Amino acid sequence: MGQINKELMHKDAPIGVFDSGVGGLTVAREIMRQIPNEKIIYFGDTARVPYGSKSQKTVTRYSEQIVRFLRTFQVKTIVVACNTASAYALDTLEKDIDIPIVDVIKPGAKMATEVTRNGRIGVIATEATISSQMYTKYITNLNRSITIYEKACPLFVPLVEEGLWEDPVTDEIVRRYLTELIDIDIDTLILGCTHYPLIRSTLRRIIGDKVTLVNPAYETAVELRQLLSEMNILNEETPGLGSNQYQFYVSDKAEKFVRFANSIINYGILSAKTVNIEEY
Amino acid sequence: MGQINKELMHKDAPIGVFDSGVGGLTVAREIMRQIPNEKIIYFGDTARVPYGSKSQKTVTRYSEQIVRFLRTFQVKTIVVACNTASAYALDTLEKDIDIPIVDVIKPGAKMATEVTRNGRIGVIATEATISSQMYTKYITNLNRSITIYEKACPLFVPLVEEGLWEDPVTDEIVRRYLTELIDIDIDTLILGCTHYPLIRSTLRRIIGDKVTLVNPAYETAVELRQLLSEMNILNEETPGLGSNQYQFYVSDKAEKFVRFANSIINYGILSAKTVNIEEY
Repeated sequence: MGQINKELMHKDAPIGVFDSGVGGLTVAREIMRQIPNEKIIYFGDTARVPYGSKSQKTVTRYSEQIVRFLRTFQVKTIVVACNTASAYALDTLEKDIDIPIVDVIKPGAKMATEVTRNGRIGVIATEATISSQMYTKYITNLNRSITIYEKACPLFVPLVEEGLWEDPVTDEIVRRYLTELIDIDIDTLILGCTHYPLIRSTLRRIIGDKVTLVNPAYETAVELRQLLSEMNILNEETPGLGSNQYQFYVSDKAEKFVRFANSIINYGILSAKTVNIEEY
Repeated sequence: MGQINKELMHKDAPIGVFDSGVGGLTVAREIMRQIPNEKIIYFGDTARVPYGSKSQKTVTRYSEQIVRFLRTFQVKTIVVACNTASAYALDTLEKDIDIPIVDVIKPGAKMATEVTRNGRIGVIATEATISSQMYTKYITNLNRSITIYEKACPLFVPLVEEGLWEDPVTDEIVRRYLTELIDIDIDTLILGCTHYPLIRSTLRRIIGDKVTLVNPAYETAVELRQLLSEMNILNEETPGLGSNQYQFYVSDKAEKFVRFANSIINYGILSAKTVNIEEY
């Protein structure tokens, strides 16, 4: 990480959260639950979604543009609420920045390492996240004796975006992707894409009760809270009414985003603004 | 259309063809078959695919960038080999340009009007193309007595991109999307997205033998040939070996594109170059 500049980090400054689209809202939701005093600036790159099938170079360029955009709000920290961006862009983003960055891969990897009993962890994610092998790298660093089985599930994001959260087609696709992980007898499964918690009940039904599902969104909010606390920049005051505590920005289709966001976040999101992210 | 400048249009100049990704290759394939002397510069916007879920403003901006890129090759004409870009961006593109542009919607709409006997035409396409209602507008302009039934099929593109061209899951999704069109007793179905010819045999099996499938890729190549002929700029000479007759450019993941292209075009595509399209 670059040199952290504490001058930039005010307690009442917002937290920047970004994702390729709506999936990162599952992370924002956990932050709202666990640290309810914090302000959030959320950016969803709905013009260029999905990231999971794109190259490292492209995902890194997109992430850099978004970080430049979020910094115009004087955010005190940034949460990369997208596994693909965490896998591909985190190193580059950290190199140049003077505020802390929290990613979604490390917290999930750490939790999975703690909960596995038989030392067999499965990871499901986009093609990009799987090909980066970042989950395997982090978990192996923590515990060399754990075996990790990674499986790309490229159709999950389109199925979630189509709203087929509970559907026989989703069942069939989940069954195909998970069969080999079930056969290998994993006891822990990391939901390595922020869209996947939205089909959690289907995943649970097909993988069975014996496998622990790790949702990195939850672990990421825990990690963020701890980081803010250690740096003494947790917001101690509840933002007042009319303070615009949660602001949402997208690169396209703001209305569709708002509808989707309201189905994920139980909060009554009124609006999202569209920005031309290519200009940043 | 802007004022056409004939000075710019040389017989041996290439044709620019673009799409959001690989779907437009079904159009390029028809051009290669029907006008085998022509050179083609193909651009697939693989960094920003898919277009079908994006807004008109965004699709238009992307299309304008691509046209600027294609014009650096002194193309004699441009084929918008993407239904979404044809629906959303054609009017804007035509306004400023001094070479002819061929889209994929008008040729398919015209053919459907000619082949229907019962006056009931179905159109399947992306969300964006359907919401533009361009097929309905063109067909109604040609024949007011025809009834058009439009149906968005947002999961077809991800299924095609995943290679599930023949699969029980694709069967099930095709059945869901087509049921109402079958019930309405259409006799003609326009494949209003350039990806859809790749699941033509599944569509045929489920819609039955009595419905005529219209593939705008074929009709577009017919229209292009006619246009070049009328303007007296058909290439009369076969390009020699080593003349780079077909050149492919993408905005991301050139290798994956080449693999996919070789499964569509029976030609032996060796390479595609990556360009940063945001710079145009």
